[in-house]
This record gives sequence, structure tokens and C-alpha cells, in this order.
Amino acid sequence: MTDPLKVGVLGYRFMGKAHSNALARLPMFFPEAPEVERSVIVGRDEEALADAADRFGFESTATDWRDVVDDVDVFYNLGPNHLHAEPSIAALEAGAHVFCEKPLAPTLEEAEEMRDAARDADGVAGCAFNYRFVPAIQYAKGLIEDGELGEIHHVRGRYLQDWLVDPEAPWAWRMDKDLAGSGALGDLGAHTVDLARFLVGNVAGDIERVSGHLQTFVEERPVPDTDEYKPVTVDDAYTAQAEFENGAVGSFEASRFANGHKNDHTIEIHGSEGSLTFSLERLNELEVKTGDSRGYETVLVTDETDPYVDHWWPPGHVIGWEHTFVHENYEFLTAAAEDGEFHPSFEDAYEVQQVLDAIERSGETGEWVSLE
Amino acid sequence: MTDPLKVGVLGYRFMGKAHSNALARLPMFFPEAPEVERSVIVGRDEEALADAADRFGFESTATDWRDVVDDVDVFYNLGPNHLHAEPSIAALEAGAHVFCEKPLAPTLEEAEEMRDAARDADGVAGCAFNYRFVPAIQYAKGLIEDGELGEIHHVRGRYLQDWLVDPEAPWAWRMDKDLAGSGALGDLGAHTVDLARFLVGNVAGDIERVSGHLQTFVEERPVPDTDEYKPVTVDDAYTAQAEFENGAVGSFEASRFANGHKNDHTIEIHGSEGSLTFSLERLNELEVKTGDSRGYETVLVTDETDPYVDHWWPPGHVIGWEHTFVHENYEFLTAAAEDGEFHPSFEDAYEVQQVLDAIERSGETGEWVSLE
Amino acid sequence: MTDPLKVGVLGYRFMGKAHSNALARLPMFFPEAPEVERSVIVGRDEEALADAADRFGFESTATDWRDVVDDVDVFYNLGPNHLHAEPSIAALEAGAHVFCEKPLAPTLEEAEEMRDAARDADGVAGCAFNYRFVPAIQYAKGLIEDGELGEIHHVRGRYLQDWLVDPEAPWAWRMDKDLAGSGALGDLGAHTVDLARFLVGNVAGDIERVSGHLQTFVEERPVPDTDEYKPVTVDDAYTAQAEFENGAVGSFEASRFANGHKNDHTIEIHGSEGSLTFSLERLNELEVKTGDSRGYETVLVTDETDPYVDHWWPPGHVIGWEHTFVHENYEFLTAAAEDGEFHPSFEDAYEVQQVLDAIERSGETGEWVSLE
Amino acid sequence: MTDPLKVGVLGYRFMGKAHSNALARLPMFFPEAPEVERSVIVGRDEEALADAADRFGFESTATDWRDVVDDVDVFYNLGPNHLHAEPSIAALEAGAHVFCEKPLAPTLEEAEEMRDAARDADGVAGCAFNYRFVPAIQYAKGLIEDGELGEIHHVRGRYLQDWLVDPEAPWAWRMDKDLAGSGALGDLGAHTVDLARFLVGNVAGDIERVSGHLQTFVEERPVPDTDEYKPVTVDDAYTAQAEFENGAVGSFEASRFANGHKNDHTIEIHGSEGSLTFSLERLNELEVKTGDSRGYETVLVTDETDPYVDHWWPPGHVIGWEHTFVHENYEFLTAAAEDGEFHPSFEDAYEVQQVLDAIERSGETGEWVSLE
Repeated sequence: MTDPLKVGVLGYRFMGKAHSNALARLPMFFPEAPEVERSVIVGRDEEALADAADRFGFESTATDWRDVVDDVDVFYNLGPNHLHAEPSIAALEAGAHVFCEKPLAPTLEEAEEMRDAARDADGVAGCAFNYRFVPAIQYAKGLIEDGELGEIHHVRGRYLQDWLVDPEAPWAWRMDKDLAGSGALGDLGAHTVDLARFLVGNVAGDIERVSGHLQTFVEERPVPDTDEYKPVTVDDAYTAQAEFENGAVGSFEASRFANGHKNDHTIEIHGSEGSLTFSLERLNELEVKTGDSRGYETVLVTDETDPYVDHWWPPGHVIGWEHTFVHENYEFLTAAAEDGEFHPSFEDAYEVQQVLDAIERSGETGEWVSLE
Repeated sequence: MTDPLKVGVLGYRFMGKAHSNALARLPMFFPEAPEVERSVIVGRDEEALADAADRFGFESTATDWRDVVDDVDVFYNLGPNHLHAEPSIAALEAGAHVFCEKPLAPTLEEAEEMRDAARDADGVAGCAFNYRFVPAIQYAKGLIEDGELGEIHHVRGRYLQDWLVDPEAPWAWRMDKDLAGSGALGDLGAHTVDLARFLVGNVAGDIERVSGHLQTFVEERPVPDTDEYKPVTVDDAYTAQAEFENGAVGSFEASRFANGHKNDHTIEIHGSEGSLTFSLERLNELEVKTGDSRGYETVLVTDETDPYVDHWWPPGHVIGWEHTFVHENYEFLTAAAEDGEFHPSFEDAYEVQQVLDAIERSGETGEWVSLE
Repeated sequence: MTDPLKVGVLGYRFMGKAHSNALARLPMFFPEAPEVERSVIVGRDEEALADAADRFGFESTATDWRDVVDDVDVFYNLGPNHLHAEPSIAALEAGAHVFCEKPLAPTLEEAEEMRDAARDADGVAGCAFNYRFVPAIQYAKGLIEDGELGEIHHVRGRYLQDWLVDPEAPWAWRMDKDLAGSGALGDLGAHTVDLARFLVGNVAGDIERVSGHLQTFVEERPVPDTDEYKPVTVDDAYTAQAEFENGAVGSFEASRFANGHKNDHTIEIHGSEGSLTFSLERLNELEVKTGDSRGYETVLVTDETDPYVDHWWPPGHVIGWEHTFVHENYEFLTAAAEDGEFHPSFEDAYEVQQVLDAIERSGETGEWVSLE
Repeated sequence: MTDPLKVGVLGYRFMGKAHSNALARLPMFFPEAPEVERSVIVGRDEEALADAADRFGFESTATDWRDVVDDVDVFYNLGPNHLHAEPSIAALEAGAHVFCEKPLAPTLEEAEEMRDAARDADGVAGCAFNYRFVPAIQYAKGLIEDGELGEIHHVRGRYLQDWLVDPEAPWAWRMDKDLAGSGALGDLGAHTVDLARFLVGNVAGDIERVSGHLQTFVEERPVPDTDEYKPVTVDDAYTAQAEFENGAVGSFEASRFANGHKNDHTIEIHGSEGSLTFSLERLNELEVKTGDSRGYETVLVTDETDPYVDHWWPPGHVIGWEHTFVHENYEFLTAAAEDGEFHPSFEDAYEVQQVLDAIERSGETGEWVSLE
């Protein structure tokens, strides 16, 4: 019997809660997962941090990640984007396994440094693109790789939210280029590009070139609790066209201004033999057209033979968004404990970042950008 | 600071897992919930029980509920229906709070005894109709009670599953009248009748009379690991018509033979000012038509102002079936700790049982049955 | 080359328009249909009638059907229900083919007389249950009769409208028992019962017994252009339970108070091998689950191999409600010209009426009623 | 009382049937429409033409449009794209009103000549973008222009078909650049661009610049009844990004390879105050989110107050694809009879063509193209 993995987590808000919950649920639902010690949680606001440690079940707190990275087996980097590179690289160099939130970094340069650090490190370096771990998505990938869709012709992805549609919605770090890197593109588009690559990469090949367009609809926003307005220096929305290695056509889009859409990440794929559609707000379902079907079949992906489902509840008893974190934590921690492989790796996330960077550059130059 | 509530649980399979998970999640998501000690879990198969205790986080096990009821603050009765009455009554008499799975009992007589025991007891006696605790259902109830639907004319409920459509699907206790009381009626119809009463009871009044029809499509089924067939002595499906106090028309149905439906509990209500539809397989959504709307609006009930949602995730990050257990455990334990009220109580569940019993009797006599 | 069929039509409002349009469209889309002469249109209001004759392309008008029935090859009875029996019987006796709107008659007695007259007559006697002629319905019937659904377990039908939900909606003949026979039951339920019999009759057998409930929510309504209120002497809504010969369970319902539903006729059928759902407001679609499908497939029934579709437009170019009249007129007139058979016949319509009558009697007595 | 408009029609296949049907139906449903004489139908295959004239109700036939244009009041040009310019211009010069199928021309140059001819002519020159005449689309335009969606941020349009997904699907003129101009772009994208301009043009302004991508998945196809293969010289699919005058972001796409989609033209618009979605395969419906709604409302656009609906059937009695032709013919002929204005005019259609041409050029150069 091995010692539990000692986990340190940077970040205690939204993502901190989501991963802490995942760690807490593994023993009951994935008893074969490696044992974990929620050791230390890192943040700046000591009071909020103490409260989070208490609720999330951490043994201790720290206000400087430098004090933590040498001391843990696994380092979770759930901080804002501009804090992804330095702590993650330090943790890798200290020999820890590192699990970093997406997008990997605000710039391609930093993403490259992180990828290089991961290449040189012994630990497992994973990026938390959690939507890969939706059962319906894994089921979809299986269909595609089994040839049920045939040759891929179209990949369409959009991620629609509306939390900025009010021009007086408050300023936040996600609207600042230095802190976030980009806006809808990096926050939402990163998920779409990762899913597109995950789903069709082995069949349609890589994304070879892209054309992009970034748009900011509201140029400045009020800073909470002040009279001040700060500029929005990232995109509120992006669109992109893409061409895959096999000639498949990609069409991507995201927005924070899509009135009426809260968290609508939709992926549609058409191939010579079939098609499928997935939508995050109905994440237990997959629309599938294959074989002799005349139309799309609504598959409720909750059978015990479906990916991960046997760990949960009987058919028809739906799971939620948070379950994707349990699945990805299970996979990541298993890889960490067994010195195995985990995907999406930093390498995968770097390749996503290349696409995002190409979209952004294309938006600036007005020309298609090739991905070497 | 008070002592934690000491909880004993009878049953360690499906419902045992669902409630144990709920108990385990309360501290992180409902920190204001009373503290709980998962003290003892009760079952007959010692090995399976030890394993369950370990996974579900219980301190000890017991093979006889009689050894437990005196010793706990709260007794969860998650056993099969024929084990609902005796242990629940004993626990109430011993002064414990009791939370019993639905339907309250296999027969109206036993349900009456349980209700009477609850009346005489000091503890809180709750029945675990978990679908009351879906945020969309509570939101719907609010709309109805605020008059958004006006006078209620129609209440339609159906609960469709298909796990028995294969005539060779194995026999189980749920197909035996002595052990289960009834089939689709008690297992599924109980939920529908409870939700109907919960949603419109304060506006349309009680169900005054019913006409029912029970049907068994397959008369005997193979007993697993034997060459034997056992008779199916309960209904595979039921239908019912109902009349509410205010003249509203009810139409209820459930089946275990509804090919293609895994867990499809759908409620539709039409009133003079509006209508709504809820479906369990899309439990984060409510279809609502009110005011000047021309059609149904698809409301994603995941805003922070929606019932319970502020405890979980941001808008659009959907929850699952299991979350209803967290909500109901939160409410039940809070009532237990504060000697408050909890609904659905044994009284509520007894009234549901009266309706089920009337449907069954109507099915036998071919005549409408009035509920006094 | 034969002479054109000389057609006389009683009724020039809604149904008059629907059938006149059908007759006018046959030559372009069904060139193999018998040639028709729109000879005479019958009504009481001479001015409105003249206008209708002009718009609908009739050569002449008459104010008394007695002047017409001897003189035409085909008599269309599109009048209110209480005018169905006498003119239809007279026309049959005069040797004409008769096409009568549904329900066949306001009472079972009159329906029986009409059926008997049809038995004795040489002409073809058809009842205009137009929904049999929706391509998706005929496609569904084909699937069922090919065994794609296996043994039938459930037949669910509901027809929801909301035009009476306003208590001040004006009185009309459809609310009077003497003129209409019944309300939602005869007007809407007749369609449901006919479709249920049409779709599963050859597989599940006849409806053997029913239990019904009729409800009137608003007891009197204002007479237009007066200060007067007249009583509503028919049902605003009905529900029914049914048992088919093979043990299948039926569940039927209609309402004129279903807020938000304009013309929502939905049929759902579950069998041992599959299921299907049809909804009139999306009449080009059929939801089908058969074979190894995991869920319902949305079939757009607009392929050229689908029933009647090759007469219209390419795949995906949807048709409307009125096209069902073109199809039924084509079939009826072809039968008339060739002395062939047409279904739904008066015999079929009489059997529907028996079911409606049994539902109504069950509603009065509170007991199930058997259909001999 | 004026003389009927004498109509000559070039083309007797799919579009010939659709417009002939529209002409035939006007008197019954739009009695206020100008009277029309279906005078002459033009085509090359005399036998097929005679048959068409008979079925479609035309008095005579002609094999050369030159013999017709001088002789009619209204000339319908329903021929293949490469036959749009010359006959239309000749007819305009001869003083006829001209109604031409879309896209206006295979090249921008020809479109420009047609527009110029229309400017110089006395007759009305209309382009038959029929989807403007869907009631739901006109209702949508009303909402947008009433400000119900606020400032427009996103316009998304896609038109998906799958009739070429089989690589052995036969060659046809629509796959030849000389005859058709372009493929999915001109055939399907023209509709999308026209609808986008129609719906938001008065609010978001013109499309100012575009970036496009055209793709051909199958390079050659078998010629029917031969052993030969001919090259496909047009696009099987296109994608485009667009920017509107007000900064709104456009995202357009069409394909003939979208497996499972027959005629799926979907438009989605998001504004600061609301959103809407329309889909052609459910053309009686509009998804609308406005005001305080929390989600999209499914509006069945069949009320008598909805555009054109009072001419047809009661609420809930859905219309089909062909009805759009009746509406556009009504509007066009009314304009012709009254020397009024008709939109979409040749001017409108030219502007659509400018966008298509810019998308195509962008696809060639890999750069955004501005529309002056």
C-alpha cells in the first residue's frame, strides 16, 4: 500500500471548489482511484482562504505558492491565467505532478515554456479541459474513431454565454489582456478547439490553417465598488474558420454576448457516414445519426456501458457539470500515481494555444494563418 | 455548539449510496446544515455491508435494525417497501427522527400505522420523495402559488421506464406484491401523485376521486441463477384519471415497458393563465408559458436566484439527479436539528398512499373511488 | 375517357375551404386523380355562399341540400354535426358517393343509421378523418404493421387546444349538445380514437373497454352581438383509459383549455421492439425508436419514397396541414371513380363513435364500459 | 376593372412547379391579388413542356424565350443561373415586369448588368428569395425593427443539405461553375445572406467586410446514363465570417455534405435585448427571447394576426414550404399591377451577389474583402 498523494491547490474560488469536490467524491465513486491527502490550499486572502480550507477539507493554507511546490506530490494550478506559467513550471521542476486549468497560458510564449518544462520533468503535466470527460463526448469520440461517421467533412463548434451582454456588467480580470491573454477566445474557444482536436484529430488530422475575427462590443466597464471604468482589452466574441489536414472545414465561434445562452457549448460534426451533435447544457445527451438512420437519434448517455457511468447511477439518472471534474481528476491522479500518461497534456494544451494564437494573429492581419 | 446528529441507515444499495453521498456533500455545499455523524449502516450481507460502510464513510455496521434504532438520533429507512413500517415505527417510538424511502408502505394499512406513529412521536418523520427538491420543481411551485398559471384545469403526469420490456428480464423483489405492494404504481406513480399534490395542492385542492387501471404484460420472469420462473404479482403499468377539488382534471400513467424511456418523469400543468412542463431527464429545465407569452419558454433553472442553485455552480452549469438528495437531506436534517417541520411528512406520504390505494381498488372494481 | 365526377358540397366555411382547395390542387399534383367538376355549393346565407362559390370555384349555389343530392355524383357533407345524418343518408339513397366530415354524427344512433345506409348503398361512403393521410402517420402505420414496434403495449393520444381558456370566449354551436353531440370528445377525441385504431388496430386489435371522464370548466358563454349568455352543454375536456384486445393500455385526452397549445395532437406508441411519437404541429416529423437504436430518431418524412411525398417537393421541403385534405380527397375520389373501397368508411367512423359513446356513458356512470 | 396580367414563365421543373402552384392558388386565398393569365411556359424539351403546360395550367408553350418576352406583361425567369441575365434583361427592355429566381446571376458582372437594366426599366424587377415570405421571418423582422432585440451583436446563418454526401451522387448543372456560378455558396448561401440583410439590415447596417472559405470534397462525379465523370468546379461547402456596419459579427455556412440535414436553413440572431432562432424545417415556429424572458419561447407563428396567416387556416394549422411562393407571388404581382415597389429587387439581389462574390474572392486570396 502506497502513501496517499499529497495535493496542494492554488486557487480557492470557482475552480477550487470544483476540483475540491472532485477529490472529495473519488473514494465513494471511484474506490480504485489513488488515495489523496488534501494537504494545502493557496491564496492571498487569508480569511477567505481559511474558510475555503475548512469547507473544502484541506489541512492547511498558504499565501505563497513558492512555499508549497516543493512540498507536495501533486500541484493543482487553478489560478487566473497569468499565474499559470511560473508556479506550474516551478512545481514541475520540483518534481511534482501538475494539473493546470485551461487555457494553458495567456500567451503562446508562456505556453511553450510550460510545454518545455513538462517535457523535461518527471511528473505528469495535465491541462484541465474537463469537457473531454463528459461521458457523451467520450462516447462520441468512440463512434468517430470506430468509423461510424466515415470521413469527416465538417466540424462546427460554438460556445455561447451572455454574462457580459449588459454594458454595465462589472469589470473583472477576465477582461484584461495582461491577466487573461484573451477573452471569449481563450476562455471558451480553448474548450472548443480542444474538443475538436480530441474528437476528430485521429481521423481528420490537425488543424492546418485558420482565419479569425475578434470583436469587443463594449470598450470599458465599471470597476466594482469604485467610480472608475476600466478598458476591456480582450475580445467579447470571436469567430474562426479552419481547415483540417484531410480537408474538413471547421467553423468556430464563442461569445459572452449571446443573449439567452448561459453555458451553451455545442459541437456538431458531419461525416460521410454520419453526424453528431453535443450540447453542454444537455450534457447527458448525444444526437447521433449513423448507419441507416434517417435522422438524428437522441441517445441518453447514461447506460452502465457508457464511459464512467457505471460509477454513478442507473440508466436515466442524469449527472451534472461537476461530474466531469471527478472523471478528469480520477484519470489525472491515476496517471500521477502510476507514472502513466494523461491527456490533455501540456503538449496538447500547447497545441490548442497555437490555434488560439493563430486565430488572434489572423484577426489582426486579416489573413489566414498556417499552423506549421 | 451542538453535538452532531448520529445517523443510522438501513439499506446500502442504490438508495444507500444516494443518501450517503448526500450526507457526505453537505459540509462543502451547505455549510449551514447540521453536523452529521455517519454512525451505522444496517444490512444482512455482512461482507457487502462492510464494503459499503467503508465506501460510504460509516463508522460501524449492524445486521439487525433493532440494535440500531435506540442508539441513533436519526434513522434512515432505505430498505425494500415491506421493511418500511416496522423499523420506522420502532425508531419513532425510540425517539429518533425517521427518514423513510417512498412509497411509505406497501399497503394503506401499514402506511396508516406509520402515519399514526409519526403523529405520536416527537421526532421528525419524513418521506424521501426527492423530486420535490429539484430546483425546477420548486421554481414551478412558486409560479403556481404566485398565480402565474391562474386557475388550474389540467394536471398530467407520466413516469416512463423500459427496464422490463424484455420478457426475459429477471425477477426481482419489486415484482412481488408482498414485498413491494404494487409495481409501477407504487414505485413510479407514487412520485407522480406526490408531485401533483405538491405543485397544485394549495391551488387546485386535493384529489377527490380517481379511476385506475393496472396492467401486467408479462406474467412470470426468470429468477437469476436458477432455472425457476416466479410470478409477477404487481402491475407493469398503470393509468389513472383524477378529479381535483376545484374540478381540475388529472391524468396519470407509469410504465416499466415504455421502450426508449429510461427515467422519463414528465409533469404538465395547464391553467387559465399559463402552463408548464417538467421532464426529469432534463431536470435543469422548465418549460413555462405565462403572461403574454405566445408559447413555452425554456427556462434553464440554474440562476443563482433559483432554489438551491446558489449552493452549487454559476448559471448554465447543470446539476444532476443526485443533487435532489442533497437538497432533501439538507431540509430534513435541518428540521431534525431544529425540531422543525419537514415535508413531505409521513402524513403527506400517507395521503399519497391513499390515492395509490384508491387507484388500485378502482382497477379491481372498475369504478371510480372517492377519497373522503 | 369518363365524364368528370360532379361534386356537390354542403358547407362553405372552414371545411368547405379546406376541401375546395384540395379539389383545386389535385390536377396539378395528382394528375392521375379522377377529373372533378365543382358543381354546386350549399349553404343558407346566400351572399356569403355566392362569394364562396366564386372563390372556391363552384359553378352554382343552392340553399337546400335536398335540391342537390339527386343531382351530383359525389356529395360532400361538411356541415355541423347535427346535419350529418339526414343529408348523407339521402345522398346515399340517391346513389351518390358521400364524403362526410367527422365525427360521423352527434349520437351513436344517428351514426348507426348512417352506417346502415352506407351498407345498403352502392356509393362509396367515407368519413373525413384527414390525419390518417399525413405522410408521417402512414409511414408510422407501415412500421407498426411490419412489426418494427413488436407487440404493442401502450397507445397514448392527446389533442390539446386552448381556444376556450378565456371564460369570455364566445358561445358557438360546437358548445351545444344538440348541435354538436359532444365537445372536445367528439371534435378532437374522434381524431385520436380514429388514429389509434388506424395505427394499431391490425396489431393490437380493437379497443375492448374504456373508462372516461368529461369535464366542463365554464358553464355558460356570451352569445356574440347580444347581451345573452348560453349554457355550454358539452365537455371542455375529456380523459379516457382504454384496454385493447391484446391487453395494450390506452390513454386518451383532449382539451380546449390547454393554455399554449393551438392544435397539438400527439400520439405515442410503445411496443416490445420500439416506440414512436407523432405531433401534429410538427407534422412532417416522426420520432421513431426501433431495432438497436438507443433513443428516438427524428425522421423528417419528406423523402420521395415516403407516402404521397413524390407528388410534392424534394426532401426537406415541408408540407402543411392542408395537404392531408389533398391526399384524402385523392383517395376518396379514386375509390368513387373506380367503385373501390375507401377507409375510413362510415363503418370505421361508426366504430369510432361507439368508442366515443362508451367514453361518454362511462363518464356518466363512473364505470368501465365494454365494447361488444 | 383591368385586364389580367399575362404571364410567361421560363422553366418548368422544380421552380416552375412551385411558382405555377402559387399562381393557381392566389384567387382562392388572396382574392385581392391581381388577376393573372398563365399564358405561356418556355422550355426546350417539347414533350415535357407540353405535359407541364397541361398540369400547370398554361395556355401555350414556347421553346425560345425570345418569342415570349415581347408578348407578356410579366416574365418569370426560373431557368438555371446562366440563363438569368440575357432573358431577364431582354424582358425588362421589352417593358415586362420580371421575376427572376435566385441567385440573381452566376457572376457579379452579370448581376450588375441585370441591376442596371432594372434601374433603366419601367417594369418591376424582383428576385425570388422566397424565405423572406415565411410568416415567422416577417414576424422576426418586425421584432427586430421594433427594437425587441436591441442592438444586434451576432448574426449566424447556416444552410445544411446532404444530397451530395454520397461521392457517387450524379453530376448536375449545379456543380458546374460556368452554368451555376458557384455551388453551395450561390445556391444556399445566397438565401442566408439575403435573409441576414433583410432581417437586420435596417438595424445593424450593411455587411462591410467578409472572409470566406470554399471547399470541394468530391472532385468529379458520374454523368447519368454514361460511363463518364465530369469535374465538380464549384464549392460543396462554404464558410464565411462577416462584419456589419455596427460591429455585429456574422458567421455564415452552407453545405451539401451535412449528413442528416435535408433543408436545414437556420438563422440565429443575438442582440443586447433579446435573441431569436429560425429553422426552415420547422418553418411555422420561431424561437424568441425578449424582454424579461429567461429563455427562448417557442412561438407557433400561425395566429391570424401573424403575417399572411389570416389568408390560410386557424391557429395551429401549419403551412408548408410552398406557401412562401404564394406570398411572394402575391407581393410581386401586386407591385407589378400597381407599378409599386417590390423587395427583394434586382438591386437587393445585386447586393447579395456582391457579398457572395466577396466571399469567393476572399476564399481565393486568403484575405478579408471589403464591400465598398
